[in-house]
Amino acid sequence: MNDNKSRTVFFISDGTGITAETLGHSLLAQFPEMRFKQVRLPFVDSVAKARECASRIRDAARNDGARPVVFNSLVDSEVLATVRQADALYLDLLERFIEPLESELGVKSTHTVGRFHGIADSLDYKDRIEAINFTLAHDDGVSHANLDTADVILVGVSRSGKTPTSLYLAMQFGVKAANYPLIPEDFERNKLPTELHKYRRKLFGLTISPERLAQIRQERRPDSLYASLENCRYEIEAAQRLMQREHIPWLDSTARSIEEISTKIIQEIHLDKRGY
Amino acid sequence: MNDNKSRTVFFISDGTGITAETLGHSLLAQFPEMRFKQVRLPFVDSVAKARECASRIRDAARNDGARPVVFNSLVDSEVLATVRQADALYLDLLERFIEPLESELGVKSTHTVGRFHGIADSLDYKDRIEAINFTLAHDDGVSHANLDTADVILVGVSRSGKTPTSLYLAMQFGVKAANYPLIPEDFERNKLPTELHKYRRKLFGLTISPERLAQIRQERRPDSLYASLENCRYEIEAAQRLMQREHIPWLDSTARSIEEISTKIIQEIHLDKRGY
Repeated sequence: MNDNKSRTVFFISDGTGITAETLGHSLLAQFPEMRFKQVRLPFVDSVAKARECASRIRDAARNDGARPVVFNSLVDSEVLATVRQADALYLDLLERFIEPLESELGVKSTHTVGRFHGIADSLDYKDRIEAINFTLAHDDGVSHANLDTADVILVGVSRSGKTPTSLYLAMQFGVKAANYPLIPEDFERNKLPTELHKYRRKLFGLTISPERLAQIRQERRPDSLYASLENCRYEIEAAQRLMQREHIPWLDSTARSIEEISTKIIQEIHLDKRGY
Repeated sequence: MNDNKSRTVFFISDGTGITAETLGHSLLAQFPEMRFKQVRLPFVDSVAKARECASRIRDAARNDGARPVVFNSLVDSEVLATVRQADALYLDLLERFIEPLESELGVKSTHTVGRFHGIADSLDYKDRIEAINFTLAHDDGVSHANLDTADVILVGVSRSGKTPTSLYLAMQFGVKAANYPLIPEDFERNKLPTELHKYRRKLFGLTISPERLAQIRQERRPDSLYASLENCRYEIEAAQRLMQREHIPWLDSTARSIEEISTKIIQEIHLDKRGY
């Protein structure tokens, strides 16, 4: 066992490095007792830049007294060979996976530099930007226009997580996600807001624990009725009753990240733009 | 050579599967001539669900007449073994990288189910949600309050890409990104908006080609002066002159994705919350 608990981890790419970093973070999360100093080196697309990387890897090794870990997605073999002159543990995303894929598919990969950041399909990209614009224009019930083109309309009490979830759905999945608050007037009438009636099949609810909601609202408006635990409890019970009556599917956002909530929503209502 | 050009690709995870999918998309982009049918199977956290996966893999193999490709990040070995009973090319993110990491670091990974989606650190997560809220509250110059807590303030002409870039910076990197439009009045005075003077060191500019800008504006307001090529040319030249005079760093968003623009901004102004 090595009791050295601090390492430098590099994410090196000829593009943004976001793929290498996403995978790297997930893997490093499996070693919670270690401390990692993380360095992102994007757009490494020349031998000169590769030399700089190698030199930074050597510096880190000297400072830490231990070999750095390098997640890399470099396509150009000369650039890659130049970086690898520095001693480190190289976890090479392309090398590990492209070869088995090539032999399985029976075709050669294009080895296109910069394609590795995953924004290959420009139509897909345009959909995402459009979805972001749509979601912004339909945040918090701001506009009822064009709700018929929404893919989903999130409903829930104020601060139940609708806005960040809508934005994540748009940005990651290209889903046009509007959101609409359920407010005390709706609970008194025990009815959905009139504007939403004809879109009932697009509605998806978010709920949250009263304690967590009170905590979030407290940060926004300390010591208000709005933030009081009693009021939060009332609003949440009323919202859940309403959603149940209207047969709106819903989930609890309390202990879930926006990534988890968004993935669950897509799974539950078969919302997928990429033909899953 | 295999001339079968269509395959089903599965992304299977005990969490959201976003890590497997991000890596998978990047790799598949290296095979542009292939057609892939993509299936996301998240939250596979029981043997029963694993059995369903195996059955879907077998169905796809039968339909395609070819083995599916499976990107998986399953931690539980019984769940994994159950899925793997179906014949496919398995590209296992954990198996390929966790073992070399364990032996390099001299510690065992925790093999924590669901941790693989990369949202391990809740402080980091809270920062991201706060950044999203900040960015929304400071979109398009809406509010000048608390600009001193902004990490960066993007400036540029209307529709140069400020809003989606700000949101991506917030969502992916936890960066509090405000944005502020440069408008004809600013160009006439040839001065930055007064509100921005004291934040000059936080400013970062976006520019865009006049042709692309005219095209984007045309979709919003067809045949307007606002969208005309002459006006776009005038605004962009004036904005660039202003940014040059004020020594504001800037970049051209024309042929770049929000991922690329955001990564460049972080690199250029050393904006990094994770201590890179």
